[in-house]
Amino acid sequence: MRSVLISGGCGFLGSHLIDRLLLRTDLERLVVVDNLWTGLLRNIAHIDDPRLGLEIQDAESFVSRHRFDEIIHLASPASPVWYMREPARTIRANIGGALNLLSALKPGGRFCFASTSEVYGDPLVSPQPESYRGSVDCTGPRSSYDESKRCTEALLFEQQRVSDLDIRVVRLFNTYGPRTRIDDGRAVSNFICQALTTGIVTVHGNGSQSRSWGYVDDIVTGLERFFWRDPIDHRGPLNIGNNCEISVLEIAEFVCSLVPGSRIEHHPPFPQDPTNRCPDLTSAERVLPGWEAKTGYRDGIRLTLEWFREQIATTASAPGGYAKGAVAL
Amino acid sequence: MRSVLISGGCGFLGSHLIDRLLLRTDLERLVVVDNLWTGLLRNIAHIDDPRLGLEIQDAESFVSRHRFDEIIHLASPASPVWYMREPARTIRANIGGALNLLSALKPGGRFCFASTSEVYGDPLVSPQPESYRGSVDCTGPRSSYDESKRCTEALLFEQQRVSDLDIRVVRLFNTYGPRTRIDDGRAVSNFICQALTTGIVTVHGNGSQSRSWGYVDDIVTGLERFFWRDPIDHRGPLNIGNNCEISVLEIAEFVCSLVPGSRIEHHPPFPQDPTNRCPDLTSAERVLPGWEAKTGYRDGIRLTLEWFREQIATTASAPGGYAKGAVAL
Repeated sequence: MRSVLISGGCGFLGSHLIDRLLLRTDLERLVVVDNLWTGLLRNIAHIDDPRLGLEIQDAESFVSRHRFDEIIHLASPASPVWYMREPARTIRANIGGALNLLSALKPGGRFCFASTSEVYGDPLVSPQPESYRGSVDCTGPRSSYDESKRCTEALLFEQQRVSDLDIRVVRLFNTYGPRTRIDDGRAVSNFICQALTTGIVTVHGNGSQSRSWGYVDDIVTGLERFFWRDPIDHRGPLNIGNNCEISVLEIAEFVCSLVPGSRIEHHPPFPQDPTNRCPDLTSAERVLPGWEAKTGYRDGIRLTLEWFREQIATTASAPGGYAKGAVAL
Repeated sequence: MRSVLISGGCGFLGSHLIDRLLLRTDLERLVVVDNLWTGLLRNIAHIDDPRLGLEIQDAESFVSRHRFDEIIHLASPASPVWYMREPARTIRANIGGALNLLSALKPGGRFCFASTSEVYGDPLVSPQPESYRGSVDCTGPRSSYDESKRCTEALLFEQQRVSDLDIRVVRLFNTYGPRTRIDDGRAVSNFICQALTTGIVTVHGNGSQSRSWGYVDDIVTGLERFFWRDPIDHRGPLNIGNNCEISVLEIAEFVCSLVPGSRIEHHPPFPQDPTNRCPDLTSAERVLPGWEAKTGYRDGIRLTLEWFREQIATTASAPGGYAKGAVAL
């Protein structure tokens, strides 16, 4: 029987991963560490399982007498809107969190970490294989996130080199779906919330920047297989994402097509917004045979839109709920 | 009158910088924080100045009730031999040190940081301007150093963006000279110590990898001017180094020419040893007019060799001193 710690478990991705973790019959105890900076208690409010314990604390200062067989470190904001506001805190969550949580791992335990395609920065090769060293401005306005993910990778792979730790690092490409915060600020959820509330969908720049849009269920299946389910023979980070590259404008147009009366407005581009992003999935195909992010963006966006429609309806009907246009982005 | 904190002040570079700091007439108090990991007390043993205080502590956990007008953060090993042995500690010293020391800065104070040309990794452009984003393998065996320097830059420039902090970051290219540890492990000091003890100078690989060799007095003059002396109108990191690119083999041959009976032996290359490294000094010429690292490698190596010869003679004559060949590298 295994005891598992997940940091950032109340977040978008973390809460989905918890749903999968609780399906495990070998799981004895699951401790969720989350400071509710971007995580939400309601993301795990549906869970009624005596194995689950919640610690509302920072990953970088959480102290436990218990040692864990597996640690999954997700604590970090993932949206530029959030991490650009508090860069030092973002760095602390990622690197301080990893340094601190490593000390809560049992000898021979496994440490899993959600890194990001942002380690590639504004990439000069496409698609990006794991061996690509990236093009990140380490003094730029996105650097607290990009560089703290890079440095946490460095920490983990170097600890693997000096002490043969069992390390699983994924580089996640854009992921969207239910349980994204309404005020998250990233493209899909933003477009949907804007279409449903103000009717004005803001595209930064001309929208030609491309991304690889992964629906959360597919991505979490990849994580589940890599983090605990499949026998794995792989050292180094693993790209996980959808490799169908679609422009931001096409996503915005599709969202507008689903919400009558909504329309696109162009705003100035975000500083250092990458022009393109697409995973080379050669390693993933070898390590996780048969896995793919198979949900196309049209299906994924329809599912996500339905979820947000319910959320906004529920919230709007509650006292102090969202008024039309109240989504501050 | 100013109070200044310097972390890593017992190190090679730090101790030279302290000599310069103590020439300042506006300096009221100088607190040196050093855990003596790679620093040596004897580097500052010649100092007799009541303004100097020494705290033998980690930069990342040092606590002071006092707040400082200027903080100079140098705490970190700089030699691959040292940082590759303790990667987590290296990351803690750099990033944890910066996060912690920032809280000891007075409002409106200045934070100075010694970054490195290693942020450029194995560069694909030469010479390297500050705008070059680098080619660093964030999972590689040098990554604890390279990535923690990159991430500390990110932290500082992001803190500058959100709170308009006065930040001075230098990217130092190879620096050598008196007060390098005998067991430091980097090229110039290594070659000299080997020539003077075993007579066998080990060059890793064929020696064609090039570096820009900066003599410590020149480099420290650059630091002094950028950190506190000149009026500065510059945001962003600043390359400081000698831009005369010389191969490792040429350095080794010159050292051998100075020590009769010594000879070169080739050993396997270091993993991910950069093939070239040369600063683009356009910014430095604008920011520090008239400054240059003017000491050529022949003069610099002669001065360094004389210093090491004295050190080895003194140590060998002391009980338990270095025997011939005892320098473990």
